[in-house]
Amino acid sequence: MQKIESYQKLFIDYLNKYAVDKEPNNLYEPINYILKLGGKRLRPVLTLMTAEVFGTEANLALDAALSVEVFHNFSLIHDDIMDDAPLRRGKQTVHEKWDLNTGILSGDAMLILAYQLFENYESQKFQSLAKLFSKTALEVCEGQQYDIDFETRNDVTIPEYLKMIEYKTAVLVGAAMKMGAIVAGASQTDQQSIYDFGRYLGIAFQLQDDYLDAFGNPETFGKQVGGDILENKKTYLYLKTLELGSDLHQDLLLKTINNDEISDDLKVKSIKDLFTDSGASSATQEAVREFTDEAFKVLETLNISEDKKQVLQLFGEQLLNRRV
Amino acid sequence: MQKIESYQKLFIDYLNKYAVDKEPNNLYEPINYILKLGGKRLRPVLTLMTAEVFGTEANLALDAALSVEVFHNFSLIHDDIMDDAPLRRGKQTVHEKWDLNTGILSGDAMLILAYQLFENYESQKFQSLAKLFSKTALEVCEGQQYDIDFETRNDVTIPEYLKMIEYKTAVLVGAAMKMGAIVAGASQTDQQSIYDFGRYLGIAFQLQDDYLDAFGNPETFGKQVGGDILENKKTYLYLKTLELGSDLHQDLLLKTINNDEISDDLKVKSIKDLFTDSGASSATQEAVREFTDEAFKVLETLNISEDKKQVLQLFGEQLLNRRV
Repeated sequence: MQKIESYQKLFIDYLNKYAVDKEPNNLYEPINYILKLGGKRLRPVLTLMTAEVFGTEANLALDAALSVEVFHNFSLIHDDIMDDAPLRRGKQTVHEKWDLNTGILSGDAMLILAYQLFENYESQKFQSLAKLFSKTALEVCEGQQYDIDFETRNDVTIPEYLKMIEYKTAVLVGAAMKMGAIVAGASQTDQQSIYDFGRYLGIAFQLQDDYLDAFGNPETFGKQVGGDILENKKTYLYLKTLELGSDLHQDLLLKTINNDEISDDLKVKSIKDLFTDSGASSATQEAVREFTDEAFKVLETLNISEDKKQVLQLFGEQLLNRRV
Repeated sequence: MQKIESYQKLFIDYLNKYAVDKEPNNLYEPINYILKLGGKRLRPVLTLMTAEVFGTEANLALDAALSVEVFHNFSLIHDDIMDDAPLRRGKQTVHEKWDLNTGILSGDAMLILAYQLFENYESQKFQSLAKLFSKTALEVCEGQQYDIDFETRNDVTIPEYLKMIEYKTAVLVGAAMKMGAIVAGASQTDQQSIYDFGRYLGIAFQLQDDYLDAFGNPETFGKQVGGDILENKKTYLYLKTLELGSDLHQDLLLKTINNDEISDDLKVKSIKDLFTDSGASSATQEAVREFTDEAFKVLETLNISEDKKQVLQLFGEQLLNRRV
C-alpha cells in the first residue's frame, strides 16, 4: 500500500494529462479551469486506494477515480450557481468568471464526460460502474433538493437532516470506494461493505464539519468559524438544540438567529453557548463517534488482510482528525 | 410494420406509466410536467420503428426510446434557461413555472435518468447504448455552445453552420434510430448506416425549418413566420445571402437587419425579398433536397427488405413534407 500523498500525485498527474484542447473552447475551457482549481482530491484517492486494498493496481482505477472527480466538480459548478456563490477555493466560480449559461452548459458536459470515463472498462464492469454512478448521482441531486427545501422549512427532523447529508455528501464517498472495489473485481459482499464504510465515514465527516464550523480552531479549520450560524443554516447542532434544549434554549436560539441588531461576533458567541448548554454540542460529537464506529465495524467484516484494514482505519481516523 | 400513430400510442402509454411519485417532489414534479407537455414524440417513434425494421419487437426498444425523449426534454429545460424563454409548447417553461434552480437541478436529474433507462438491457447492449448516448449528448452540448458562440460572431461560415445544426439537432435523430438497431442486434454496418440516414434527415429537417421560418404558410407552420429574421438569427438563408448575394444584397441585408426603425412586417418582407433575389432561398431548398437524397442513398445499402426501406423512405418524406 502506498501513502495518501503518492495516490494524490498519481491522480493529479493523470488529471493533468486529461485536460485537452477540445473545441468549442468556450465549453471546455471552464471544465479545465475548475478541474485545476485544486482541492485535496479525497474522493479519487479513495477509489485508487480501495482498488489496491482489493488487490489490483491503482493505475487500473484511474479512469474511475477521474470520473468521480469530474462528477464532483460538475456538482460544484451547478451548486455554486444555485447558491449564488462568487468564490470557490478562493478563485472565481465558473458562472462568475464566465456567465450563467456557461456554468449550466459546461456542467452538463462534465456529467456526460464522467460517464465516458468508464468506457475503457469491459462491459460487465462498465455496467456496474455506470449503474452505481447513476444511482449515486441521482441521490446527490435529491440531497441538493432536500437541502434547498430545508431552507424554507421549520420542521426539519434529525432523520431528515441525516438523510440529506447522506445523499448530498456521503453516498459519493461510498461510491468512490465501491468503484475501486468493482475495478478490482471484489465480491458483491465486499463491494457493499466498502460502500457502507465510505458512506458512514462520509456522514461522520459532514457532522464533524457542522461541529467544527462552530467550534473549530479558526487557524486550522480553513473556513470562517461561525459561518453556518451567520447564514442561519439548519445544521445538526441547530436541530439538536431544538430537540434537546429546554423551552428557554429553544426560544433563545430562534430569537438570536433572527436578531439582526446584534453584532456577528455576539451572535456567534451566544449561539455557541446555546449549542453547549443544551447538550447539542456533545450530542454532535457523540454522533460523529457513532458513525465512525459503524464504519469501523463494517471494516471488520471485509475479506482483506489485517494490515489493509489498518490502512483504511488510519485513513478514516486521519479524515476525522482524531485518534480513537 | 405499424403506422406512426401506433408507435406514438405505444410510446405515450409507456411514458404515462413512467411518471411516478418520487421524493423529493420539488425535484420530480417538474420532470413529470415537461414530459407531459406533449409534442410529436418523433425521436422515440424512430427508435421503436427502427427496432422493428431490424426484426425485433418495438416493445423491447421502449426503454431506449424513453431515454431519448427524457434526454431531449432535459436539453429543452436547460436551453430554455439559456434562451430566457418563457413558453414551451404554449405552456410555461420549467424555470418560469418554478425557478432557475429547479430548472437546473431537475434538468440534471433527467440527464441521469436517461442513462438509467438503459439498465434493463444486458451489459453488451447497455455499453453500446450508453456509449452512443454519451457521444451524442456531448455533441448536443457542443452544438448548443456553437449556437451561442455564433450569436456574437460575424464570420460564421456555411460549413460551421452545418456542423452546428448537425450537432445540435441531427445527431440525436441518428442516435435515436441507431439505438433501435442496437436493441435489435443489427450489424455494425447497418447500425452506422441507419445512424447516417437519421443524421442526414435531421440536417435536411433543420434546413427545411430555416426555410419555412421565412417562407412557410403561417397557417400550417406552427411558429411565427419571420421569427428568425426578427431575432437576427444567422440561419442558412442568412448566411447563403451573404455568400451568394451581390455587394448590394449583402449591404442591404446587414442594414435592414440592424434597422430598428422599420416595422416588423416591413423588415420580414424586405429580408425575404433579399433571400429570394440573392438565390439563397432556392439554394436552401436545394440543400434540403441534397441532404434528403444522401439519406435515401444510405437507405439503399441497408440489409433489410425493400418494403422496410420503403417504410423508412416514406417516413423521411412525410417528415420533410414533400413527395420526391
